[in-house]
Amino acid sequence: MPALEGQTLGVVGGGQLGRMLGEAASPLGVDVVVLDPTPEAPASRVADQIVADFDDPEALAELADRSDALTFEIELADPDGLETAAAEAGVPVHPSPDTLRLIEDKLVQKRHMRAAGVPCPAFREAGSVDELGSALDELGYPAMLKARTGGYDGRGNAPIHGPDDVEAAFAAVGGDAMVEAFVDFDRELSVIGCVGREEIDAFPVTETIHEEEILRRTVSPARTRQDIREQAREVAVDVLDELEGRGVYGIELFEREGEILLNEIAPRPHNSGHWTIEGASTSQFEQHVRAVLGAPTGSTELRAPTVSANILGDVDEPQPANLQGSEAVLASDRAAMHWYGKREVRPLRKMGHFTISGPQEAVVDRLLNRASKLADELTFRTDG
Amino acid sequence: MPALEGQTLGVVGGGQLGRMLGEAASPLGVDVVVLDPTPEAPASRVADQIVADFDDPEALAELADRSDALTFEIELADPDGLETAAAEAGVPVHPSPDTLRLIEDKLVQKRHMRAAGVPCPAFREAGSVDELGSALDELGYPAMLKARTGGYDGRGNAPIHGPDDVEAAFAAVGGDAMVEAFVDFDRELSVIGCVGREEIDAFPVTETIHEEEILRRTVSPARTRQDIREQAREVAVDVLDELEGRGVYGIELFEREGEILLNEIAPRPHNSGHWTIEGASTSQFEQHVRAVLGAPTGSTELRAPTVSANILGDVDEPQPANLQGSEAVLASDRAAMHWYGKREVRPLRKMGHFTISGPQEAVVDRLLNRASKLADELTFRTDG
Repeated sequence: MPALEGQTLGVVGGGQLGRMLGEAASPLGVDVVVLDPTPEAPASRVADQIVADFDDPEALAELADRSDALTFEIELADPDGLETAAAEAGVPVHPSPDTLRLIEDKLVQKRHMRAAGVPCPAFREAGSVDELGSALDELGYPAMLKARTGGYDGRGNAPIHGPDDVEAAFAAVGGDAMVEAFVDFDRELSVIGCVGREEIDAFPVTETIHEEEILRRTVSPARTRQDIREQAREVAVDVLDELEGRGVYGIELFEREGEILLNEIAPRPHNSGHWTIEGASTSQFEQHVRAVLGAPTGSTELRAPTVSANILGDVDEPQPANLQGSEAVLASDRAAMHWYGKREVRPLRKMGHFTISGPQEAVVDRLLNRASKLADELTFRTDG
Repeated sequence: MPALEGQTLGVVGGGQLGRMLGEAASPLGVDVVVLDPTPEAPASRVADQIVADFDDPEALAELADRSDALTFEIELADPDGLETAAAEAGVPVHPSPDTLRLIEDKLVQKRHMRAAGVPCPAFREAGSVDELGSALDELGYPAMLKARTGGYDGRGNAPIHGPDDVEAAFAAVGGDAMVEAFVDFDRELSVIGCVGREEIDAFPVTETIHEEEILRRTVSPARTRQDIREQAREVAVDVLDELEGRGVYGIELFEREGEILLNEIAPRPHNSGHWTIEGASTSQFEQHVRAVLGAPTGSTELRAPTVSANILGDVDEPQPANLQGSEAVLASDRAAMHWYGKREVRPLRKMGHFTISGPQEAVVDRLLNRASKLADELTFRTDG
């Protein structure tokens, strides 16, 4: 094993996840190169950037040549291209391109996990309107139609409340899809898992709060029973056992009537794990850098109860990003700001996040209240 | 007040302090530009770099033009050049160039602080061997001869144990000097102070452990009585009251027989404050970025008892830096590695540091033992 310091990590994708990977890599002495088509991508602040499409073979080859290992921060990464570039340069890719292939197709992902005994909501393939209709006869209403590939942050998803919605939903999702019985969950949870050289580990279970299918807040540790947290962790470890390659994974779960069901898997650091920067002994980003490069992973223990709040574009049209209200966040005790460096704000675009941590004995409801009050005062609108 | 995110901080000096400033600035959405004559200086990993001498007028003008505020991470910064460049670009410099002038001359610094009522060791000017001899007649032996300007990490200092050392010490220090009564301290302490827009604050008092006048370990909180810690903080605040301009200051102190004496002041983040990255609610680097740019400063409260250990070059000759033993640090619970990205190791060069934190109730002696064991296993020597 070469020492970690002095190594270079190549990352497909240079958004906020790439930026936070770069921020975590620097103290470790790891250089980061990202591949992203947008010039001056968020990660370019703390990483070198190759400006090219995610699947550009020459750019992937350059990325591999400059790196000691490859990884990706977006599911849009091309598994074949990564595999080829890595093999030619003789460097590893983590997680494995096979894992990316498995996860990028939500139907394949769910079939695999169900076959492995991971509890999943009922689902069916829906390759046509007719097939969707038959599936719904079995699953009932409401249900969620999901594009098999390419969806994120609610994009590619369409709820179906009754038979009248079927055709419009199928048209909206457009093509290959799967349909899932709607889960009337009590709570949404997330586990950030980590696969190291020999060890599988997981960060404390997080509660996630979405609106319009976009993550708004996380609460760590999750406000649920200890046995539910343990069950969530067990399901996450079962999922990790099925995935090839080292790195950090975001595993989104439903809690319903005391049971855990798998929602979705992300083969990368995940928005629901941003709280670990302040709240855990090692952040998910540092953990990913360590794991991918084959260094020992760090402790995942809780350092402080922590709530995170996403800062989303609250504008109707794209415009230059001028955030109002951030000074109150900075002035708040145990608050930490994370700004992603995007110059343009767009409707619901993720522009940054902040966390509020407490001492060990802190009541997370209070932290959540504080975070929500601060978040409510943040705006990009200039008409207010 | 413009929002912090989107601002640019110009820093004279691009060493490890500049690098850690850049690491702290990125999550805040603050870009950093450093001015440093060494290409690919440590900070260039996370900052833009202007490659030029610290006092190059054109480079200082460019730095000021690109920045919303100027600061420095080395005392070698040129106060006149900074003042001129800042005035022409219409941006502030923090701390004030006057503070830099006051501090860069150790005799002026001590005279000012003594006049302000800050307790200092006895000292005299020593501009010639004769003057040094007369001073020693008053101060007695042992004593420490110090170059008035340019010394750091023990360089520019020469101990005088008796009359036989006087001429050699004066020759070694070379020219304008001051001589200080040797303080037979019980403990060395450090306080990282912070001057914000309106507030003066200080991080918890740190104990510093030097060998050969180079910092080796810090222990936070310091293992001394509560009333001594309070006294140290009061002396630090008295010092800060005398300094103009916002920012973070490192204030090194002696504890002797229940009393606090001022040792030295650094008008910048200081090696003895690196522990704040893991151990305090806000790090000294984030605090400096916030303060210099006029944003609210963060909480300085202790987050976790923390010990830091410097990683110094243990080689006899310069050579490529290949550190052995870092994997054990990474594998250690609650350890955090900070590598400065220097490719060449030299005798006693500061190459990085690591910290070990504990839970709130941790006994710092144990943390210190763990850190020292890990540090003892680190080596750049290839002959071992």
